[in-house]
Amino acid sequence: MPAPGGHRLTIRIDLDSGVRVGPGKIALLEAIESAGSIAGAGRKLKMSYKRAWDLVEELNRNFGQPLVLKAPGGAQGGGAQLTISGSALVKHYREIEQAAHDAASRPLSEVGRLTQKPD
Amino acid sequence: MPAPGGHRLTIRIDLDSGVRVGPGKIALLEAIESAGSIAGAGRKLKMSYKRAWDLVEELNRNFGQPLVLKAPGGAQGGGAQLTISGSALVKHYREIEQAAHDAASRPLSEVGRLTQKPD
Repeated sequence: MPAPGGHRLTIRIDLDSGVRVGPGKIALLEAIESAGSIAGAGRKLKMSYKRAWDLVEELNRNFGQPLVLKAPGGAQGGGAQLTISGSALVKHYREIEQAAHDAASRPLSEVGRLTQKPD
Repeated sequence: MPAPGGHRLTIRIDLDSGVRVGPGKIALLEAIESAGSIAGAGRKLKMSYKRAWDLVEELNRNFGQPLVLKAPGGAQGGGAQLTISGSALVKHYREIEQAAHDAASRPLSEVGRLTQKPD
């Protein structure tokens, strides 16, 4: 997410259950939501269908409940949509990112200043 | 950094200058500070001397000013210490991490709850 001066913060969450959630999985969930299918999300993210499918399986298995609902379909699978929990994960992740970005604004600017050559 | 329920947030900063700072480089700077040498820091982090040295060179080159001062020495190099800028980078990174953790406490708990099986 862009921050003051164009700096960006990326957040990774390591849950005590061992589940890790970072920008890649969140982008995949968002792409499934907008594309309406795992195949479409994979194309959007330039990710193979197998890779996208495997990530969805991993997410559904690691969380206590499905995050993505898959409908049976043709060779490349049918449609897919986020469950309420899937949408909630995306929403909370983006909230965490926004909160971190807002809270870190001042020290982030300070770090940016360190990359400027001293006068 | 530990958060409510044992969840952890990891922060990566992408500065608009292209420099990336994450937990690995910060841990190396902190280890140099406490060990007083790049070799000692590498041993502490189970990182080869060459790998630790290369990361320090990259940090010093990418920031506009040195973050680590190296003293000439024997085969494994002499002592090393952080410059004021190096110490400031570590301090600001830890501030960003703490601010993110504090600000994200509530949505992070919500994400943790998603990994529990529904009743």
